[in-house]
Amino acid sequence: MLIEKLRTEVLEANLEIVRRGLVLFTFGNASGYAREEGLVAIKPSGVPFEKLTPADMVVTDLSGKIVEGKLKPSSDLDTHLEIYRHFKGVHGVVHTHSGYATAFAQAQCEIPCFGTTHADYFYGSVPVTAPLTDEEVNGDYEMNTGKAILRRFEGIDPLTRPGVLVASHGPFAWGASPTKAAMNAVLLEEIARIASITLGINANTKAIGRALHDQHFLRKHGPQASYGQG
Amino acid sequence: MLIEKLRTEVLEANLEIVRRGLVLFTFGNASGYAREEGLVAIKPSGVPFEKLTPADMVVTDLSGKIVEGKLKPSSDLDTHLEIYRHFKGVHGVVHTHSGYATAFAQAQCEIPCFGTTHADYFYGSVPVTAPLTDEEVNGDYEMNTGKAILRRFEGIDPLTRPGVLVASHGPFAWGASPTKAAMNAVLLEEIARIASITLGINANTKAIGRALHDQHFLRKHGPQASYGQG
Amino acid sequence: MLIEKLRTEVLEANLEIVRRGLVLFTFGNASGYAREEGLVAIKPSGVPFEKLTPADMVVTDLSGKIVEGKLKPSSDLDTHLEIYRHFKGVHGVVHTHSGYATAFAQAQCEIPCFGTTHADYFYGSVPVTAPLTDEEVNGDYEMNTGKAILRRFEGIDPLTRPGVLVASHGPFAWGASPTKAAMNAVLLEEIARIASITLGINANTKAIGRALHDQHFLRKHGPQASYGQG
Amino acid sequence: MLIEKLRTEVLEANLEIVRRGLVLFTFGNASGYAREEGLVAIKPSGVPFEKLTPADMVVTDLSGKIVEGKLKPSSDLDTHLEIYRHFKGVHGVVHTHSGYATAFAQAQCEIPCFGTTHADYFYGSVPVTAPLTDEEVNGDYEMNTGKAILRRFEGIDPLTRPGVLVASHGPFAWGASPTKAAMNAVLLEEIARIASITLGINANTKAIGRALHDQHFLRKHGPQASYGQG
Repeated sequence: MLIEKLRTEVLEANLEIVRRGLVLFTFGNASGYAREEGLVAIKPSGVPFEKLTPADMVVTDLSGKIVEGKLKPSSDLDTHLEIYRHFKGVHGVVHTHSGYATAFAQAQCEIPCFGTTHADYFYGSVPVTAPLTDEEVNGDYEMNTGKAILRRFEGIDPLTRPGVLVASHGPFAWGASPTKAAMNAVLLEEIARIASITLGINANTKAIGRALHDQHFLRKHGPQASYGQG
Repeated sequence: MLIEKLRTEVLEANLEIVRRGLVLFTFGNASGYAREEGLVAIKPSGVPFEKLTPADMVVTDLSGKIVEGKLKPSSDLDTHLEIYRHFKGVHGVVHTHSGYATAFAQAQCEIPCFGTTHADYFYGSVPVTAPLTDEEVNGDYEMNTGKAILRRFEGIDPLTRPGVLVASHGPFAWGASPTKAAMNAVLLEEIARIASITLGINANTKAIGRALHDQHFLRKHGPQASYGQG
Repeated sequence: MLIEKLRTEVLEANLEIVRRGLVLFTFGNASGYAREEGLVAIKPSGVPFEKLTPADMVVTDLSGKIVEGKLKPSSDLDTHLEIYRHFKGVHGVVHTHSGYATAFAQAQCEIPCFGTTHADYFYGSVPVTAPLTDEEVNGDYEMNTGKAILRRFEGIDPLTRPGVLVASHGPFAWGASPTKAAMNAVLLEEIARIASITLGINANTKAIGRALHDQHFLRKHGPQASYGQG
Repeated sequence: MLIEKLRTEVLEANLEIVRRGLVLFTFGNASGYAREEGLVAIKPSGVPFEKLTPADMVVTDLSGKIVEGKLKPSSDLDTHLEIYRHFKGVHGVVHTHSGYATAFAQAQCEIPCFGTTHADYFYGSVPVTAPLTDEEVNGDYEMNTGKAILRRFEGIDPLTRPGVLVASHGPFAWGASPTKAAMNAVLLEEIARIASITLGINANTKAIGRALHDQHFLRKHGPQASYGQG
């Protein structure tokens, strides 16, 4: 029953990134994690979004062993699992090749916090991973992608920066649920889009100061949050 | 009855900025001001646009005291109120994080009047506020945002430039009604978009001269206006 | 009857530029010219597109005297008339503030023929007018805009370059009918968009040579045209 | 019967590039090739997409002789035929003037492989042809366009790079079927769009290394492919 609910929410997160224009064809994938059960549901590999049903979501344990489902899981499963194994509080992961975030990943430029739109959701710049070494690429590639993300987040609470740019690849976003991970993927693309336009207007734009960053992030997140109907 | 009408128009202005693609999720907010009654209606904080009804609009007096409504008002209420308290003739305020206008705000670049599209609606450049000091940010932030707008408009009739870029934040637009404020928010985004493309083509583009600026603005505004069926 | 048909086609050209995303609100206007009758039909000034009916189109003679219709004509009427009075074979004119074409007009940069998409429809660069002098702006502004277009086209057959960028203003396009003028307005925006991206990739891109330009333009236009079902 | 099926698939590929926003008006064309029968079906010249039926597709042999159909074939037919005659395994060709790919063609810049989105589909940069000489343009232009493509692909397996930028013109994409050719045309436009944004963020972005390129391309293509439901 809980797994049924998880599969339905994971499907919905996959459809949300299509509706928002973040993916083409079978690009991208969303997953969800039921921590108590130790189970992950993820999109199957290479199946058109318009044909997906909740039953098509592949359920695995945290080691990647398939528990339910007849299809092969997304090829990025191991990256998702590595995140779930190490990022406490994260129950949803979304990977896309959305244009602006992917462009920053390709340029291997982190996205500085240029304004409050960014500060509302990311407490600091959007980080870029180090490039993978050839050994990492030729080895357990998807797992090593996850490890590169973990290394980049040493000392950073992943819930304060719900996304990363994998160098030369694209964005991964996450959150406390698949729904929130999908929302963060959309926000990351919009933050990247506005940052790209900002750099086009003034290539020397500086990141905002700490006070403004705090004001906005803490207005929406954590114990002092005042935003919404809470 | 009048308040009912105001709430309906304010809701409509909120929906208009969604339809026009200026906001994502719960970004942005529109309000309206009934000057004789001294009442303001504004979007509630953090409620999805698609669920809003006129009754959800929060009604306050000019000091921000809630007069009607069960929800918390938008967190930007104090900025709106500061504008209504000081900008004569303004009965609608709209705040968005629309991409191009936000990018100019982040770059802390005013938008010079590069052409008649701009001159038709803004009588001069689109101004940028000074950045808030840390004290202003840490103090009564939303009110201080309003005060930064007022300082930038010293000596400027706000109805001749129906919008501003708050530094490192984004645009506020206004008008004689919530409907007009929403329209000005849309126009400001389009003016910013065309200006951004213009700078990409020729970074040294100069603002137009006074004669052309006057011709266009005064064709649409003020006692000599000849545009429309008026 | 013929006027009825002209008004219907002019309305349709006005709606086409809305559907194609070239105009916001009441920006832009399309007209048509019945040369034998010496009559022009044009959009009324400042009326929302969604409310327009064929009967709302204003019919004037070539001097601008209203012959039929209860509404005021578009404020740009005199520019359209100046074009009809002097450009032989032109029976439709469309003016928009479409973003990319307007940006080139604001940057006062002609659009060089960077490729065959352009060469298929414009036999040479897309010209920019000289800026109007203050006297021209303060005088009969809309007529003088038309005169600036005529001066720019001295020695150029207007049917070989069905549009122009008015400096600091925006594009006017034309054609053998209102339908073709609207199509040329759409093509001009797309040509401008691709040229803008091209310059972003390589600011030193050169215009194509004469042979390729001839090959493409003459494949679609003139006595040697081989394109289409002829 | 087989030809009926080919015409239907070719029509569908033509409609797909319209739905995906790759073409305006009658720009662009898709064809398909039944190798055993030696027959090609292609869109007719200059007919609006919305009016096309399978029966309108023109069927020719590999020399361009019309075998079935009452309409004139697309003016680019000879380019398509040249590709079918020489690119083994190619059974679909799509030509568009999609904006970003056309801009790279106009700038005469190949698209370096900046990331895995590109590496997933193109095994190397997206090549640009040499410009045609005036003699080639003035001679058998469409055939010579095909020959320029062939020359650029000397030593390259066309199925490992399913598209090319014709200098000063625009993209041609291909694949094992018309459906796959249309998909590759869409992917090429998206790869070009992201590359263009990438260059805007960091003009010195370098192509990715061989290991990452291999990992992604070979994950989706060839005997070692692991992507999808196999």
